[in-house]
Amino acid sequence: MNPRLQKQLEFIMEIDKLKHIFRRSKLMNRSRFENDAEHSWHLAVMAMLLEEYAGETELNRLRVLHMLLIHDLVEIDAGDTFAYDAQGHEDKQEREENAARRLFFMLPPDQAEWIYGLWREFEERQTPESRFAAALDRLQPLIHNYYTEGESWKLHGIRRQQVLDRNRHIAEGSPELWELARHLIEDAVRKGYLAE
Amino acid sequence: MNPRLQKQLEFIMEIDKLKHIFRRSKLMNRSRFENDAEHSWHLAVMAMLLEEYAGETELNRLRVLHMLLIHDLVEIDAGDTFAYDAQGHEDKQEREENAARRLFFMLPPDQAEWIYGLWREFEERQTPESRFAAALDRLQPLIHNYYTEGESWKLHGIRRQQVLDRNRHIAEGSPELWELARHLIEDAVRKGYLAE
Repeated sequence: MNPRLQKQLEFIMEIDKLKHIFRRSKLMNRSRFENDAEHSWHLAVMAMLLEEYAGETELNRLRVLHMLLIHDLVEIDAGDTFAYDAQGHEDKQEREENAARRLFFMLPPDQAEWIYGLWREFEERQTPESRFAAALDRLQPLIHNYYTEGESWKLHGIRRQQVLDRNRHIAEGSPELWELARHLIEDAVRKGYLAE
Repeated sequence: MNPRLQKQLEFIMEIDKLKHIFRRSKLMNRSRFENDAEHSWHLAVMAMLLEEYAGETELNRLRVLHMLLIHDLVEIDAGDTFAYDAQGHEDKQEREENAARRLFFMLPPDQAEWIYGLWREFEERQTPESRFAAALDRLQPLIHNYYTEGESWKLHGIRRQQVLDRNRHIAEGSPELWELARHLIEDAVRKGYLAE
Protein backbone atom coordinates (compact mmCIF):
# COMPACT_ATOMS: atom_id res chain seq x y z
CA MET A 1 0.00 0.00 0.00
CA ASN A 2 1.00 3.61 -0.71
CA PRO A 3 2.91 4.54 2.50
CA ARG A 4 1.20 7.94 2.70
CA LEU A 5 -2.24 6.33 2.62
CA GLN A 6 -1.03 3.73 5.14
CA LYS A 7 -0.17 6.51 7.62
CA GLN A 8 -3.48 8.24 7.06
CA LEU A 9 -5.31 4.97 7.61
CA GLU A 10 -3.46 4.27 10.86
CA PHE A 11 -4.41 7.70 12.14
CA ILE A 12 -8.05 7.19 11.10
CA MET A 13 -8.11 3.96 13.10
CA GLU A 14 -6.31 5.46 16.10
CA ILE A 15 -8.86 8.26 16.47
CA ASP A 16 -11.64 5.70 16.87
CA LYS A 17 -10.60 5.98 20.53
CA LEU A 18 -12.29 9.39 20.77
CA LYS A 19 -15.55 7.44 20.96
CA HIS A 20 -14.46 6.15 24.38
CA ILE A 21 -13.59 9.51 25.94
CA PHE A 22 -16.52 10.52 28.10
CA ARG A 23 -17.43 14.06 29.07
CA ARG A 24 -19.33 15.33 32.13
CA SER A 25 -22.43 16.26 30.15
CA LYS A 26 -25.37 13.91 29.93
CA LEU A 27 -27.19 13.33 26.67
CA MET A 28 -30.51 15.16 26.40
CA ASN A 29 -32.45 12.04 27.46
CA ARG A 30 -30.09 11.63 30.46
CA SER A 31 -29.40 7.97 29.67
CA ARG A 32 -25.62 8.30 29.75
CA PHE A 33 -22.67 10.69 29.45
CA GLU A 34 -21.72 12.08 26.07
CA ASN A 35 -18.49 11.09 24.38
CA ASP A 36 -16.08 13.41 22.58
CA ALA A 37 -16.79 12.08 19.08
CA GLU A 38 -20.53 12.74 19.40
CA HIS A 39 -19.84 16.12 20.95
CA SER A 40 -17.54 17.08 18.05
CA TRP A 41 -20.18 16.07 15.53
CA HIS A 42 -22.85 18.07 17.36
CA LEU A 43 -20.66 21.19 17.41
CA ALA A 44 -19.96 20.88 13.69
CA VAL A 45 -23.69 20.77 12.89
CA MET A 46 -24.24 23.75 15.20
CA ALA A 47 -21.55 25.64 13.27
CA MET A 48 -23.42 24.92 10.02
CA LEU A 49 -26.68 26.28 11.42
CA LEU A 50 -25.59 29.14 13.68
CA GLU A 51 -22.89 30.77 11.59
CA GLU A 52 -25.12 33.79 11.03
CA TYR A 53 -24.58 34.73 14.70
CA ALA A 54 -20.79 34.93 14.46
CA GLY A 55 -19.94 38.42 15.60
CA GLU A 56 -17.31 39.03 12.97
CA THR A 57 -17.59 39.58 9.25
CA GLU A 58 -17.47 36.66 6.82
CA LEU A 59 -15.84 33.64 8.43
CA ASN A 60 -13.90 30.90 6.70
CA ARG A 61 -16.57 28.29 7.38
CA LEU A 62 -14.39 25.40 6.28
CA ARG A 63 -11.75 26.26 8.88
CA VAL A 64 -14.39 26.53 11.62
CA LEU A 65 -15.53 22.97 10.83
CA HIS A 66 -11.99 21.65 10.57
CA MET A 67 -11.14 23.04 14.01
CA LEU A 68 -14.29 21.65 15.62
CA LEU A 69 -13.77 18.21 14.13
CA ILE A 70 -10.24 17.85 15.55
CA HIS A 71 -10.34 20.07 18.67
CA ASP A 72 -10.78 17.24 21.20
CA LEU A 73 -8.52 14.58 19.65
CA VAL A 74 -5.79 15.33 22.19
CA GLU A 75 -8.12 13.96 24.88
CA ILE A 76 -7.46 10.46 23.52
CA ASP A 77 -4.21 10.64 25.48
CA ALA A 78 -4.84 13.53 27.87
CA GLY A 79 -8.40 12.63 28.92
CA ASP A 80 -11.28 15.02 29.39
CA THR A 81 -10.46 17.72 31.94
CA PHE A 82 -13.66 18.80 33.67
CA ALA A 83 -14.41 22.48 33.07
CA TYR A 84 -14.47 23.27 36.80
CA ASP A 85 -11.52 21.11 37.88
CA ALA A 86 -8.85 23.67 38.88
CA GLN A 87 -6.25 21.01 39.69
CA GLY A 88 -6.75 19.19 36.40
CA HIS A 89 -6.18 22.46 34.58
CA GLU A 90 -2.73 22.92 36.12
CA ASP A 91 -1.03 20.42 33.82
CA LYS A 92 -3.72 20.26 31.12
CA GLN A 93 -1.65 22.24 28.65
CA GLU A 94 1.39 20.00 28.98
CA ARG A 95 -0.63 16.79 28.76
CA GLU A 96 -2.45 18.02 25.68
CA GLU A 97 0.70 19.28 23.97
CA ASN A 98 2.27 15.83 24.38
CA ALA A 99 -0.88 14.21 23.04
CA ALA A 100 -0.90 16.50 20.01
CA ARG A 101 2.74 15.64 19.29
CA ARG A 102 2.13 11.90 19.42
CA LEU A 103 -1.22 11.76 17.66
CA PHE A 104 -1.02 14.35 14.91
CA PHE A 105 2.49 13.29 13.93
CA MET A 106 1.24 9.83 13.04
CA LEU A 107 0.07 11.60 9.86
CA PRO A 108 2.29 12.51 6.88
CA PRO A 109 4.31 15.63 7.89
CA ASP A 110 2.30 18.15 5.83
CA GLN A 111 -1.00 16.97 7.34
CA ALA A 112 0.50 16.70 10.84
CA GLU A 113 1.57 20.36 10.72
CA TRP A 114 -1.81 21.39 9.35
CA ILE A 115 -3.83 19.61 12.06
CA TYR A 116 -1.44 20.77 14.77
CA GLY A 117 -1.85 24.36 13.53
CA LEU A 118 -5.65 24.04 13.55
CA TRP A 119 -5.58 22.73 17.12
CA ARG A 120 -3.29 25.55 18.31
CA GLU A 121 -5.52 28.09 16.57
CA PHE A 122 -8.56 26.70 18.37
CA GLU A 123 -6.80 26.77 21.74
CA GLU A 124 -5.46 30.33 21.33
CA ARG A 125 -8.71 31.99 20.18
CA GLN A 126 -6.93 34.76 18.30
CA THR A 127 -8.87 34.48 15.03
CA PRO A 128 -12.57 35.07 14.28
CA GLU A 129 -12.91 31.42 13.27
CA SER A 130 -11.44 30.05 16.50
CA ARG A 131 -13.44 32.47 18.65
CA PHE A 132 -16.66 31.32 17.01
CA ALA A 133 -15.69 27.64 17.27
CA ALA A 134 -14.80 28.06 20.95
CA ALA A 135 -18.11 29.82 21.61
CA LEU A 136 -19.98 26.77 20.29
CA ASP A 137 -17.79 24.47 22.37
CA ARG A 138 -18.98 26.35 25.48
CA LEU A 139 -22.59 26.77 24.41
CA GLN A 140 -23.30 23.12 23.64
CA PRO A 141 -22.72 21.70 27.16
CA LEU A 142 -24.61 24.64 28.59
CA ILE A 143 -27.64 23.72 26.46
CA HIS A 144 -27.27 20.09 27.58
CA ASN A 145 -27.05 21.11 31.22
CA TYR A 146 -30.04 23.39 30.96
CA TYR A 147 -32.26 20.79 29.29
CA THR A 148 -31.30 18.04 31.72
CA GLU A 149 -32.33 20.38 34.57
CA GLY A 150 -28.73 21.00 35.61
CA GLU A 151 -27.88 17.36 36.21
CA SER A 152 -24.11 17.83 35.84
CA TRP A 153 -24.10 21.21 37.68
CA LYS A 154 -25.92 19.70 40.65
CA LEU A 155 -23.71 16.63 40.74
CA HIS A 156 -20.59 18.77 41.01
CA GLY A 157 -22.03 21.57 43.15
CA ILE A 158 -21.43 24.23 40.49
CA ARG A 159 -22.70 27.78 41.09
CA ARG A 160 -23.98 30.55 38.84
CA GLN A 161 -20.84 32.68 39.05
CA GLN A 162 -18.61 29.78 37.98
CA VAL A 163 -20.78 29.16 34.94
CA LEU A 164 -20.76 32.84 34.02
CA ASP A 165 -16.97 33.07 34.37
CA ARG A 166 -16.35 29.86 32.46
CA ASN A 167 -18.57 30.80 29.54
CA ARG A 168 -18.02 34.54 29.32
CA HIS A 169 -15.79 34.25 26.27
CA ILE A 170 -18.77 33.08 24.19
CA ALA A 171 -19.29 36.85 23.78
CA GLU A 172 -16.01 37.15 21.84
CA GLY A 173 -17.23 34.60 19.29
CA SER A 174 -20.85 35.65 19.16
CA PRO A 175 -22.59 38.41 21.16
CA GLU A 176 -25.97 36.94 20.21
CA LEU A 177 -25.13 33.45 21.43
CA TRP A 178 -23.74 34.93 24.65
CA GLU A 179 -27.09 36.60 25.15
CA LEU A 180 -28.74 33.18 24.70
CA ALA A 181 -26.26 31.60 27.13
CA ARG A 182 -26.95 34.27 29.77
CA HIS A 183 -30.67 33.76 29.36
CA LEU A 184 -30.24 30.01 29.92
CA ILE A 185 -28.01 30.55 32.96
CA GLU A 186 -30.37 33.03 34.65
CA ASP A 187 -33.38 30.86 33.89
CA ALA A 188 -31.53 27.82 35.27
CA VAL A 189 -30.98 29.69 38.55
CA ARG A 190 -34.66 30.69 38.68
CA LYS A 191 -35.76 27.11 38.09
CA GLY A 192 -33.35 25.69 40.67
CA TYR A 193 -31.15 23.81 38.16
CA LEU A 194 -28.12 25.90 39.16
CA ALA A 195 -27.15 27.24 42.60
CA GLU A 196 -27.03 31.04 43.08
CA MET B 1 -36.07 34.70 22.32
CA ASN B 2 -35.60 35.43 18.61
CA PRO B 3 -38.04 32.92 16.97
CA ARG B 4 -35.52 31.97 14.30
CA LEU B 5 -32.91 31.08 16.91
CA GLN B 6 -35.60 29.25 18.89
CA LYS B 7 -36.30 26.99 15.89
CA GLN B 8 -32.61 26.37 15.33
CA LEU B 9 -32.17 25.50 18.99
CA GLU B 10 -35.07 23.05 18.95
CA PHE B 11 -33.55 21.31 15.94
CA ILE B 12 -30.13 21.19 17.62
CA MET B 13 -31.71 19.50 20.64
CA GLU B 14 -33.79 17.12 18.53
CA ILE B 15 -30.76 15.78 16.68
CA ASP B 16 -29.20 14.71 19.98
CA LYS B 17 -31.19 11.55 19.25
CA LEU B 18 -28.70 10.57 16.54
CA LYS B 19 -26.43 9.50 19.42
CA HIS B 20 -28.90 6.69 20.17
CA ILE B 21 -29.12 5.25 16.65
CA PHE B 22 -26.86 2.22 16.54
CA ARG B 23 -25.25 0.78 13.45
CA ARG B 24 -24.13 -2.80 12.73
CA SER B 25 -20.43 -1.94 12.90
CA LYS B 26 -18.46 -2.50 16.07
CA LEU B 27 -15.97 0.07 17.31
CA MET B 28 -12.34 -0.84 16.62
CA ASN B 29 -11.90 -2.22 20.16
CA ARG B 30 -15.09 -4.30 19.69
CA SER B 31 -16.60 -3.11 22.97
CA ARG B 32 -19.91 -2.01 21.47
CA PHE B 33 -21.73 -0.98 18.29
CA GLU B 34 -21.08 2.42 16.78
CA ASN B 35 -23.76 5.11 16.77
CA ASP B 36 -24.62 7.40 13.86
CA ALA B 37 -23.29 10.58 15.48
CA GLU B 38 -19.84 9.08 16.03
CA HIS B 39 -19.91 7.59 12.54
CA SER B 40 -20.75 10.98 11.00
CA TRP B 41 -17.90 12.62 12.90
CA HIS B 42 -15.47 9.93 11.77
CA LEU B 43 -16.47 10.35 8.12
CA ALA B 44 -16.01 14.11 8.33
CA VAL B 45 -12.45 13.71 9.64
CA MET B 46 -11.77 11.15 6.90
CA ALA B 47 -12.97 13.70 4.34
CA MET B 48 -10.48 16.23 5.72
CA LEU B 49 -7.58 13.80 5.41
CA LEU B 50 -8.38 11.80 2.27
CA GLU B 51 -9.64 14.53 -0.03
CA GLU B 52 -6.52 14.15 -2.18
CA TYR B 53 -7.88 10.78 -3.38
CA ALA B 54 -11.13 12.17 -4.77
CA GLY B 55 -11.15 11.11 -8.37
CA GLU B 56 -12.49 14.37 -9.68
CA THR B 57 -10.93 17.78 -10.01
CA GLU B 58 -11.14 20.31 -7.18
CA LEU B 59 -14.07 19.50 -4.87
CA ASN B 60 -16.09 21.93 -2.83
CA ARG B 61 -14.73 20.64 0.47
CA LEU B 62 -17.24 22.56 2.56
CA ARG B 63 -20.16 20.84 0.81
CA VAL B 64 -18.59 17.42 1.30
CA LEU B 65 -18.42 18.06 5.05
CA HIS B 66 -21.92 19.49 5.19
CA MET B 67 -23.33 16.40 3.48
CA LEU B 68 -21.46 13.99 5.73
CA LEU B 69 -22.54 15.81 8.90
CA ILE B 70 -26.25 15.57 8.06
CA HIS B 71 -26.45 12.43 5.88
CA ASP B 72 -27.73 10.09 8.61
CA LEU B 73 -30.11 12.45 10.46
CA VAL B 74 -33.12 10.83 8.80
CA GLU B 75 -32.29 7.66 10.74
CA ILE B 76 -33.55 9.39 13.90
CA ASP B 77 -37.03 8.51 12.62
CA ALA B 78 -36.32 5.86 10.00
CA GLY B 79 -33.75 3.82 11.94
CA ASP B 80 -30.54 2.33 10.58
CA THR B 81 -31.25 -0.02 7.67
CA PHE B 82 -28.60 -2.72 7.59
CA ALA B 83 -26.59 -2.64 4.38
CA TYR B 84 -27.46 -6.25 3.51
CA ASP B 85 -31.10 -6.21 4.59
CA ALA B 86 -33.02 -6.50 1.29
CA GLN B 87 -36.44 -6.29 2.93
CA GLY B 88 -35.51 -3.19 4.93
CA HIS B 89 -34.42 -1.52 1.72
CA GLU B 90 -37.85 -1.94 0.12
CA ASP B 91 -39.43 0.93 2.05
CA LYS B 92 -36.22 2.67 3.15
CA GLN B 93 -36.69 5.53 0.70
CA GLU B 94 -40.20 6.30 1.85
CA ARG B 95 -39.34 6.09 5.54
CA GLU B 96 -36.37 8.37 5.07
CA GLU B 97 -38.25 10.88 2.93
CA ASN B 98 -40.87 11.22 5.68
CA ALA B 99 -38.13 11.62 8.27
CA ALA B 100 -36.44 14.34 6.22
CA ARG B 101 -39.74 16.21 5.90
CA ARG B 102 -40.39 16.14 9.62
CA LEU B 103 -36.90 16.80 10.88
CA PHE B 104 -35.40 19.30 8.47
CA PHE B 105 -38.58 21.37 8.39
CA MET B 106 -38.23 22.07 12.10
CA LEU B 107 -35.63 24.60 10.91
CA PRO B 108 -36.39 28.04 9.46
CA PRO B 109 -37.54 27.51 5.82
CA ASP B 110 -34.28 28.66 4.14
CA GLN B 111 -32.20 26.28 6.26
CA ALA B 112 -34.73 23.46 5.91
CA GLU B 113 -34.50 23.67 2.11
CA TRP B 114 -30.73 23.83 2.27
CA ILE B 115 -30.34 20.76 4.49
CA TYR B 116 -32.98 18.85 2.52
CA GLY B 117 -31.08 19.65 -0.69
CA LEU B 118 -27.80 18.47 0.81
CA TRP B 119 -29.40 15.22 1.91
CA ARG B 120 -30.94 14.59 -1.55
CA GLU B 121 -27.61 15.39 -3.18
CA PHE B 122 -25.90 12.82 -0.96
CA GLU B 123 -28.51 10.17 -1.72
CA GLU B 124 -28.47 10.74 -5.49
CA ARG B 125 -24.68 10.71 -5.98
CA GLN B 126 -24.82 12.85 -9.11
CA THR B 127 -22.15 15.37 -8.12
CA PRO B 128 -18.41 14.89 -7.49
CA GLU B 129 -18.92 15.98 -3.87
CA SER B 130 -21.67 13.48 -3.15
CA ARG B 131 -19.81 10.66 -4.89
CA PHE B 132 -16.77 11.29 -2.73
CA ALA B 133 -18.86 11.60 0.45
CA ALA B 134 -20.70 8.36 -0.36
CA ALA B 135 -17.39 6.58 -1.01
CA LEU B 136 -16.25 7.46 2.51
CA ASP B 137 -19.59 6.31 3.93
CA ARG B 138 -18.91 2.88 2.41
CA LEU B 139 -15.20 2.73 3.17
CA GLN B 140 -15.46 3.50 6.90
CA PRO B 141 -17.54 0.44 7.94
CA LEU B 142 -15.37 -1.69 5.69
CA ILE B 143 -12.29 -0.56 7.60
CA HIS B 144 -14.09 -1.25 10.88
CA ASN B 145 -15.11 -4.71 9.72
CA TYR B 146 -11.65 -5.55 8.52
CA TYR B 147 -9.95 -4.47 11.74
CA THR B 148 -12.43 -6.29 13.95
CA GLU B 149 -11.67 -9.48 11.96
CA GLY B 150 -15.02 -9.38 10.21
CA GLU B 151 -17.12 -9.46 13.36
CA SER B 152 -20.21 -7.96 11.74
CA TRP B 153 -19.75 -9.92 8.48
CA LYS B 154 -19.53 -13.21 10.37
CA LEU B 155 -22.50 -12.39 12.59
CA HIS B 156 -24.73 -11.83 9.56
CA GLY B 157 -23.23 -14.48 7.29
CA ILE B 158 -22.12 -11.96 4.67
CA ARG B 159 -20.06 -13.16 1.67
CA ARG B 160 -17.34 -11.62 -0.46
CA GLN B 161 -19.56 -11.00 -3.48
CA GLN B 162 -22.13 -9.09 -1.41
CA VAL B 163 -19.41 -6.84 -0.02
CA LEU B 164 -17.99 -6.23 -3.49
CA ASP B 165 -21.43 -5.39 -4.92
CA ARG B 166 -22.38 -3.17 -2.00
CA ASN B 167 -19.17 -1.16 -2.10
CA ARG B 168 -18.43 -1.02 -5.80
CA HIS B 169 -19.55 2.59 -6.12
CA ILE B 170 -16.60 3.69 -3.99
CA ALA B 171 -14.82 3.68 -7.37
CA GLU B 172 -17.05 6.52 -8.62
CA GLY B 173 -15.95 8.73 -5.74
CA SER B 174 -12.34 7.64 -5.58
CA PRO B 175 -10.56 5.04 -7.72
CA GLU B 176 -7.68 4.97 -5.24
CA LEU B 177 -9.91 4.32 -2.23
CA TRP B 178 -11.72 1.59 -4.18
CA GLU B 179 -8.34 -0.03 -4.74
CA LEU B 180 -7.79 0.12 -0.97
CA ALA B 181 -11.27 -1.31 -0.33
CA ARG B 182 -10.65 -4.21 -2.73
CA HIS B 183 -7.34 -4.94 -1.06
CA LEU B 184 -9.08 -5.08 2.34
CA ILE B 185 -11.87 -7.31 1.00
CA GLU B 186 -9.52 -9.82 -0.64
CA ASP B 187 -7.26 -9.88 2.39
CA ALA B 188 -10.30 -10.40 4.64
CA VAL B 189 -11.24 -13.48 2.58
CA ARG B 190 -7.67 -14.81 2.79
CA LYS B 191 -7.62 -14.35 6.55
CA GLY B 192 -11.05 -15.95 7.05
CA TYR B 193 -12.80 -12.74 8.21
CA LEU B 194 -15.18 -12.89 5.25
CA ALA B 195 -16.71 -15.94 3.54
CA GLU B 196 -15.79 -16.63 -0.11
